[in-house]
Amino acid sequence: MNIKDIAKSAKEASLELLGASEQLKNTALKMIRENIEKNKNEIFAANQKDLEEAKELVLNGKITNATYARLKLDENKMREMLKGIDDVISLQDPVNKVFWTKELDEGLILKKVSCPIGVIGVIFEARPDVISQVASLAIKSGNAVILKGGKESNNTNAKMEQVINEALGCVENFPKNAVNLVFSHEDIKDLLKLDEYVDLIIPRGSNKLVKYIQENTKIPVLGHASGICHIFVDESAKADLAIKVCKDAKIQYPSACNAVETILVHKNFPELNKLKKVFENAGVEIIENPKDFSCEYGDKLVSLKIVANVDEAINHINKYGSGHTDCILSENMENVKKFMDYVDSAGVYHNVSTRFADGFRYGFGAEVGISTNKTHSRGPVGLDGLTIYKYKLFGNYQTVEPYAKGEKTFTHKSI
Amino acid sequence: MNIKDIAKSAKEASLELLGASEQLKNTALKMIRENIEKNKNEIFAANQKDLEEAKELVLNGKITNATYARLKLDENKMREMLKGIDDVISLQDPVNKVFWTKELDEGLILKKVSCPIGVIGVIFEARPDVISQVASLAIKSGNAVILKGGKESNNTNAKMEQVINEALGCVENFPKNAVNLVFSHEDIKDLLKLDEYVDLIIPRGSNKLVKYIQENTKIPVLGHASGICHIFVDESAKADLAIKVCKDAKIQYPSACNAVETILVHKNFPELNKLKKVFENAGVEIIENPKDFSCEYGDKLVSLKIVANVDEAINHINKYGSGHTDCILSENMENVKKFMDYVDSAGVYHNVSTRFADGFRYGFGAEVGISTNKTHSRGPVGLDGLTIYKYKLFGNYQTVEPYAKGEKTFTHKSI
Repeated sequence: MNIKDIAKSAKEASLELLGASEQLKNTALKMIRENIEKNKNEIFAANQKDLEEAKELVLNGKITNATYARLKLDENKMREMLKGIDDVISLQDPVNKVFWTKELDEGLILKKVSCPIGVIGVIFEARPDVISQVASLAIKSGNAVILKGGKESNNTNAKMEQVINEALGCVENFPKNAVNLVFSHEDIKDLLKLDEYVDLIIPRGSNKLVKYIQENTKIPVLGHASGICHIFVDESAKADLAIKVCKDAKIQYPSACNAVETILVHKNFPELNKLKKVFENAGVEIIENPKDFSCEYGDKLVSLKIVANVDEAINHINKYGSGHTDCILSENMENVKKFMDYVDSAGVYHNVSTRFADGFRYGFGAEVGISTNKTHSRGPVGLDGLTIYKYKLFGNYQTVEPYAKGEKTFTHKSI
Repeated sequence: MNIKDIAKSAKEASLELLGASEQLKNTALKMIRENIEKNKNEIFAANQKDLEEAKELVLNGKITNATYARLKLDENKMREMLKGIDDVISLQDPVNKVFWTKELDEGLILKKVSCPIGVIGVIFEARPDVISQVASLAIKSGNAVILKGGKESNNTNAKMEQVINEALGCVENFPKNAVNLVFSHEDIKDLLKLDEYVDLIIPRGSNKLVKYIQENTKIPVLGHASGICHIFVDESAKADLAIKVCKDAKIQYPSACNAVETILVHKNFPELNKLKKVFENAGVEIIENPKDFSCEYGDKLVSLKIVANVDEAINHINKYGSGHTDCILSENMENVKKFMDYVDSAGVYHNVSTRFADGFRYGFGAEVGISTNKTHSRGPVGLDGLTIYKYKLFGNYQTVEPYAKGEKTFTHKSI
């Protein structure tokens, strides 16, 4: 099938999924979990093939050791993958939630109800464990999905898709073609044009890939191109604890998008030298007043700037930040309130490491990505972020005419 | 100021508005209301100028009589305009609503809180009453706004903007440049490129304008290009009431986007002839099995198709509809449930005219438009639709490390 036919049949599947019960969706997830476990060794074998090929690429300098490590599927990752599916099964159904019910007039009842978005295209790096995570979230939220993984994991991905669809094929009444996998880079280009069938694109990958996608499609794109996270260390912060948090935010996983890139220190913070010392001892290079405050190092490098007060910190963050996650370390509650209200980011933190910005840590069960968008979903996106709503209006053959003429008026009562 | 500077200063205003209290916003709205009333005659005079110029255009066939009528601001529309502001004042503040609070672990509290989107660009037709409506909604939801009205109402628009900003200038602590007006068609082209400053575009106008905008910007666009609304008249519908609803949905205001374009009739509906008769008597032309079921007539024309059952109706709507508003007239609750779940539209109605799809009628106070998007806001968009959320995390200097190492686990308790 070409990509257009795949998207078309995914659309059909998504329309069937609109009315899928929680029970049907959970049965599907359980079958997938079972079948992955049953075919574990075949999946490992497919992964082994990818790893063989990747070894060459590492030797030729075409992929990094880190990519190779992410590519590898071991017993540990398999266990996490299966637990991830269990977690999604145990989460509440995000569909058919009634946000509110309103009586517009006697016998005229309006309900705002959550529903699936439709067809979601997810483009991700060479991480074979992502497929089951994204497929689970999509199924539980009633969406069809078109997946494109990094080409280095093609063998594992193909096996995973086969195992997932084999499982779904055994679930009575579950639509065909809800989970789809495509392989080539050409497919991405074509996918981006299919706004007739695809409702949302979620890219997970390099800044370059995300920017390319944002600039080449009319389909809404959910994600983030960069994660320029900040910590503002206020004058009143508890010094030792503040330094500990800064260190965690940088070195616990320097290449993560929620790692801190710039530390803004109040000019009267008493332990600036100690802060620098701790960073140096941890092998982190401090760049004071860099030329470019909007660079995402993704490495053991951090920008440092002395600021006069919380206002300067807020202005700096709103100017150079990427709206991802920013933190204030402070015991001055007035400053904290200001920071939490005026910093225009998806996550604003008080006295806590930026590294907490994550769907698992937020208790969303899993995430399809972290969004710095300011429409639809923001921050870590889990099940709720994959839904939209519809208005259901229940009446008794009412017409608009008497309301337009002023013979009848609306009551607009919450019920 | 050129459009880039306008957008830049609107962005600055939007950052100041992030922390605006409900009281400040309501004071601003009251001042605007007062100043419009005070300057009523000057506004009428400006409108008179527009009307003089528009008369020429009507005579030359460059604008329609309907456009001329919409352009006209009379005492009636003025009263509605002022009442519209009062309505927005009386609505609950949509900002700082806490959707939920969760304990991630002891002393680590996550809140999902509503907040403004930022800078919204609204492009609308020659209707001078739209300015105060959109400006009120933007102010109450804490957003800055850049307005571009139809050029035929340039004089009225300029006066309105002057009166609004004069009022805002008298409100202590209210940011400058929150409400901005631009005039030329070139400005639209430039505005669409300013994704650095503008967070959302809302076009209200012809299908052609909306499509042009959707295809020429990276900024999220909220709105609808077309309103292909359907009514499915089931076998079991109460015949006379059903015919009354169909008639209302077509003729009450044929050019409205929520007017019905296609009526799908169950093959066993007993009063098909009567339905046709009623339409004919009302001057509506019935087109049976037209070539193009996705045409928005916007006039006294309606497509008619006989269908075998509710499934055929649902499939037809999901294929040809625009996801705006669709209705089932039926007494068969199984069919009703199916229709409400499986029709993939912003509004799904049971036994009620499609013409109810409207922000005022839904009790939203006002609307900036009706969205057929499947991300962010859907259906009539009022105050809530102009907000997004942020995650606020409050801690006690926690680091991620002990959680990553498995020494600590999350509690994820709703509180």
